[in-house]
Amino acid sequence: MNYPSKVLERAVEEMANLPGIGKRTALRLVLHMLNRPKSQTVALAEALDKLVDEVKYCQKCHTISDHDVCEICINPLREQDLVCVVEDVRDVMAIENTGQFKGTYHVLGGKISPMEGVGPGQLNINSLINRAKNGEIREIIFALSSTMEGDTTVFYLYRQLKDYNIQFSTIARGLGVGDELEYADEATLVRSIQYRVPYSDQKF
Amino acid sequence: MNYPSKVLERAVEEMANLPGIGKRTALRLVLHMLNRPKSQTVALAEALDKLVDEVKYCQKCHTISDHDVCEICINPLREQDLVCVVEDVRDVMAIENTGQFKGTYHVLGGKISPMEGVGPGQLNINSLINRAKNGEIREIIFALSSTMEGDTTVFYLYRQLKDYNIQFSTIARGLGVGDELEYADEATLVRSIQYRVPYSDQKF
Repeated sequence: MNYPSKVLERAVEEMANLPGIGKRTALRLVLHMLNRPKSQTVALAEALDKLVDEVKYCQKCHTISDHDVCEICINPLREQDLVCVVEDVRDVMAIENTGQFKGTYHVLGGKISPMEGVGPGQLNINSLINRAKNGEIREIIFALSSTMEGDTTVFYLYRQLKDYNIQFSTIARGLGVGDELEYADEATLVRSIQYRVPYSDQKF
Repeated sequence: MNYPSKVLERAVEEMANLPGIGKRTALRLVLHMLNRPKSQTVALAEALDKLVDEVKYCQKCHTISDHDVCEICINPLREQDLVCVVEDVRDVMAIENTGQFKGTYHVLGGKISPMEGVGPGQLNINSLINRAKNGEIREIIFALSSTMEGDTTVFYLYRQLKDYNIQFSTIARGLGVGDELEYADEATLVRSIQYRVPYSDQKF
């Protein structure tokens, strides 16, 4: 594309560096920024600068936090020895939004993926093993996506952690609440039958 | 959504102010910014600041430009008295990318739209009338979208400009080059028959 202005071009190129935003979308967004009050775009730029300057990660669970230790990890009302292992901060937010989980988290920061060159060394695994070594963990719930990479990561972590006195589980797979049977994919349907729950165990 | 961090929340909120970007997408983009080198996000913030600070509009045709008068309006090789009237800068870029148009532009900055509260006063119409008054325009090509608003705008402009000695045209509507007849919408098909071109006038 030929741009009529260098400042326009640079803004478009930088926006188009974001994932899922092509040149056309970037141009549309940038032109929108020019049509709204200047202060709004200055506020956006400032928020992004502040983000990369001031962001902190919890020293214990590695979630994004404003403090050295996050609000969940210092909350005495949470079960500190029940740890839900997730891939990233979005997963923490999703589970927190349910308001039903009373344990804590451990954010891996990704999944083991040889295809994308992500090995165990790039993930927050050592700190999880240390938490286990120190006897801080009673139960681990693996809440990773059920893909090849997710399953590999769970298997790797299990092998590293199985000798400590910890109870392991993975989140249940099955039909979503409200889903209709006829639209479910085969793999999910098979798992929902394999891992059926005795009717007497149902929690309502 | 509950955010684990204030700087994260602010960045997400500001990104989600952009059109077509919801909270979830904004969160995905902001987390991506945290996973890439910090310098890239600083560069984005700087580009946006520079954009709103330094952007200029051509005094003659109102397109975005690095100079007071844009490169098209000062180019002696362009037909300065042939003016293509468009809605915004993207249209200028689209036509320029064809490399076939040798005239100049006039960017209205929108369309007349009573529904969205945009009247003629908010558009760059007076400057177009002044260009006509000064005898600077020989021919005007209306290249607006063929919607209710686009047609209204063309009609309004035509009424304001018809007493000057100017030749008016609109861009041709019809089936796109390479389009198949059976997939064309009815309105387009009807227009392509109404405005059929004598075979002897075909330009190859």
